[in-house]
Amino acid sequence: MTVGVAIEAPPMRHLLDVEGQSRAEIERILDLAVEMREARTERRHRSMLERETVGLAFYETSTRTRVSFELAAKALGATVVDLGMAGSSVVKGESLVDTLRTLERTGVTTIVLRHSDAGAPYLAARETGLRVVNAGDGAHAHPTQALLDALTLREALGSLDGRTVAIVGDVAHSRVARSNLHSLVALGARVRVAGPAEWIAGFESWRGVTVAASLDEALAGADAVMTLRVQVERLGSGFSVGDYTRGWRLDEERMRLAAPDAPILHPGPTNEGVEITAELANGPRSLIGRQVENGVPVRMAVLAMIAGAA
Amino acid sequence: MTVGVAIEAPPMRHLLDVEGQSRAEIERILDLAVEMREARTERRHRSMLERETVGLAFYETSTRTRVSFELAAKALGATVVDLGMAGSSVVKGESLVDTLRTLERTGVTTIVLRHSDAGAPYLAARETGLRVVNAGDGAHAHPTQALLDALTLREALGSLDGRTVAIVGDVAHSRVARSNLHSLVALGARVRVAGPAEWIAGFESWRGVTVAASLDEALAGADAVMTLRVQVERLGSGFSVGDYTRGWRLDEERMRLAAPDAPILHPGPTNEGVEITAELANGPRSLIGRQVENGVPVRMAVLAMIAGAA
Amino acid sequence: MTVGVAIEAPPMRHLLDVEGQSRAEIERILDLAVEMREARTERRHRSMLERETVGLAFYETSTRTRVSFELAAKALGATVVDLGMAGSSVVKGESLVDTLRTLERTGVTTIVLRHSDAGAPYLAARETGLRVVNAGDGAHAHPTQALLDALTLREALGSLDGRTVAIVGDVAHSRVARSNLHSLVALGARVRVAGPAEWIAGFESWRGVTVAASLDEALAGADAVMTLRVQVERLGSGFSVGDYTRGWRLDEERMRLAAPDAPILHPGPTNEGVEITAELANGPRSLIGRQVENGVPVRMAVLAMIAGAA
Repeated sequence: MTVGVAIEAPPMRHLLDVEGQSRAEIERILDLAVEMREARTERRHRSMLERETVGLAFYETSTRTRVSFELAAKALGATVVDLGMAGSSVVKGESLVDTLRTLERTGVTTIVLRHSDAGAPYLAARETGLRVVNAGDGAHAHPTQALLDALTLREALGSLDGRTVAIVGDVAHSRVARSNLHSLVALGARVRVAGPAEWIAGFESWRGVTVAASLDEALAGADAVMTLRVQVERLGSGFSVGDYTRGWRLDEERMRLAAPDAPILHPGPTNEGVEITAELANGPRSLIGRQVENGVPVRMAVLAMIAGAA
Repeated sequence: MTVGVAIEAPPMRHLLDVEGQSRAEIERILDLAVEMREARTERRHRSMLERETVGLAFYETSTRTRVSFELAAKALGATVVDLGMAGSSVVKGESLVDTLRTLERTGVTTIVLRHSDAGAPYLAARETGLRVVNAGDGAHAHPTQALLDALTLREALGSLDGRTVAIVGDVAHSRVARSNLHSLVALGARVRVAGPAEWIAGFESWRGVTVAASLDEALAGADAVMTLRVQVERLGSGFSVGDYTRGWRLDEERMRLAAPDAPILHPGPTNEGVEITAELANGPRSLIGRQVENGVPVRMAVLAMIAGAA
Repeated sequence: MTVGVAIEAPPMRHLLDVEGQSRAEIERILDLAVEMREARTERRHRSMLERETVGLAFYETSTRTRVSFELAAKALGATVVDLGMAGSSVVKGESLVDTLRTLERTGVTTIVLRHSDAGAPYLAARETGLRVVNAGDGAHAHPTQALLDALTLREALGSLDGRTVAIVGDVAHSRVARSNLHSLVALGARVRVAGPAEWIAGFESWRGVTVAASLDEALAGADAVMTLRVQVERLGSGFSVGDYTRGWRLDEERMRLAAPDAPILHPGPTNEGVEITAELANGPRSLIGRQVENGVPVRMAVLAMIAGAA
């Protein structure tokens, strides 16, 4: 948990993960995102990326993340093409690398890639000359989500240094949670994970992370709480939605265990009533809307940075 | 049927329906559409909406209406994102309101919404801060279609005041017909509806509308005729396409009952040979092409007006 | 094989086929493509087509060709709308001509059409006022692919005059091969076709084309070799992928029969190991990447030319 001396980071050509990013690197992106938010409002930087062509390659459909990246790229003047990967040449059995190399030859400079295979963005970065932004790869990583969560928390708490953040739910299968564990710890936070046993197994060995035995233990004095979407189809036999809700749902009463006014985050879309009550999700503690708002400026910052423009 | 004195209308933030719009409000949009048509040709107003981000949310697929709105928004310099709702996060069971609130947080300012649920645009307008344009909601309303039909008729007839318009077909299930009933009556026209009994039941109570007992009665002396697409799957047992065609198809001979050169409208796409003969649909009386042409300027007018730019 | 005196060609309003194009016409497009490639790099001509609206109508999905046209149109400043034909009003049974006429009425000026019916672009050109670019129609023609292949070969060989090009594979069902036969012969090349008997039957009667009895005969001294994607589903009973590979796959050893350093082309995506070895496809003889790169400038040239802008 060192405070980075201002060492000049090497130019970043990709955003594949937050794992391994230093505190200084993460803070540089967050600071740039704050500037981008202002720039967007003031309609500055509108031709910053006019030489870039951003390809949106979402092999898994996603409206919110795709639109967030599309608006970020357009706000900076990039040419954007939606590759519409669901129902594309993929049908012909063309490999990911072949598809991306072809796109590179057409003049696409940056690819925003969402793929069900963990590691696909690394493959893309290694095997093509494209700049690559990981928009979610399997259960591995979702770095821009972690960065927008970090920005949201930093703005709510002032700093993450020495703060305790509880993450509740299916941590093991969540790329959002995994990326948050890395970035929150890098920013100086202590993270507690909590949930059904099979969903938090193994995290006791992660640096900066502790496994809580119960929701109450996770929430006790926590400065912020993040809960995750329950994928109902992942609930095993003998463990129902009702079981999950009784054990792990955030509600007003349980939140009294956390620090006063401790904010709540959720990557969305929420299953209201399952992992969080509607009252909490829509109440004054909720930062869920703020998380979405921070998505576009964070992605503007990332696109600008990897293009060497900021 | 009062002629509106020029009262300053309150600024319009949405276009949800033509029901309830005054003659002055409708005419203001039609006048603006005429100006927009010229502006488009002369390439003026190309940055009028440069601060707007228009999201196209078509939960029902439609090429013609979606493209018409997309070109209207782009002609005025708006940023456009196609939300590709078929096959989106909807799959995850996210509610319409949650999806739209999320889009609002990303910076989308105006949503063009087509949805199979009547009333969906009202919900969107009430529950979000988005400007909302109804691009067709269930069997309820299709206001921009009615406005482009009104413009087309006004240009063909000079004025709708005191004119008789016949609408033939499945009026009950047609959002196009329902919106036209409202706007044509507001503009001073008398409307006759005609079709199989179950498709016109109840309209005798509508202000300005009469139910004709036969096609001949509907056409007698009519100044203009609109026929609707037959949804073949709506024809009941014991009532065939042949029955419909014999009773209600427009052809040259029947059109002799109408006023000389009375024009014909159809919202498209036509089933030639079913509700209208190919000869009529493609003949000199047909305004079908003109209706499509008027779509883009009408939608430019609507987008500009709700943004407070015109 | 006449060398064209510089006769002023009539203005070209469509690109439907390369069949029937003169050497001068083809060379004019290739020369313009070279200029467009520079212009794109130097960011010139960025408002050349600002008055044009290009509709992408891909009734068959294709990422690579659609993106190539989209980037070409955007590089010249055209407004682009993707008509998303798979899953559109087509569902309602609207005819191609009706759909295109409707698009024309909305202000679309040029249509890039891919369709499974041979001849669809001719129909579009005859029945609408749109400028039409054939982006592949059935097994008939794929003129922009042939033009980018011709440019790639011209740059590799200096000139095609008197050169021998071998085309190997399912020539009969390949719109790419058919268009290449026309354009290569028009540019002065001699073409040999080779493959399983039913895939090359009938080509002996084509002007400038000879049918080779074996792969070895086709390759002997050839100045360039093009191989085609095997559609595995077209292999008949009693003829397996293994049979094809043994008889017709390009590999390093067989390529020794061709002229030294004779380049290899493939329209992509490749089935590595089936019609070509991975070694060859990715080796120094391969022009496959160069073909893709030439796609965008060739399509810029075509769009500019049919718009009368170049």
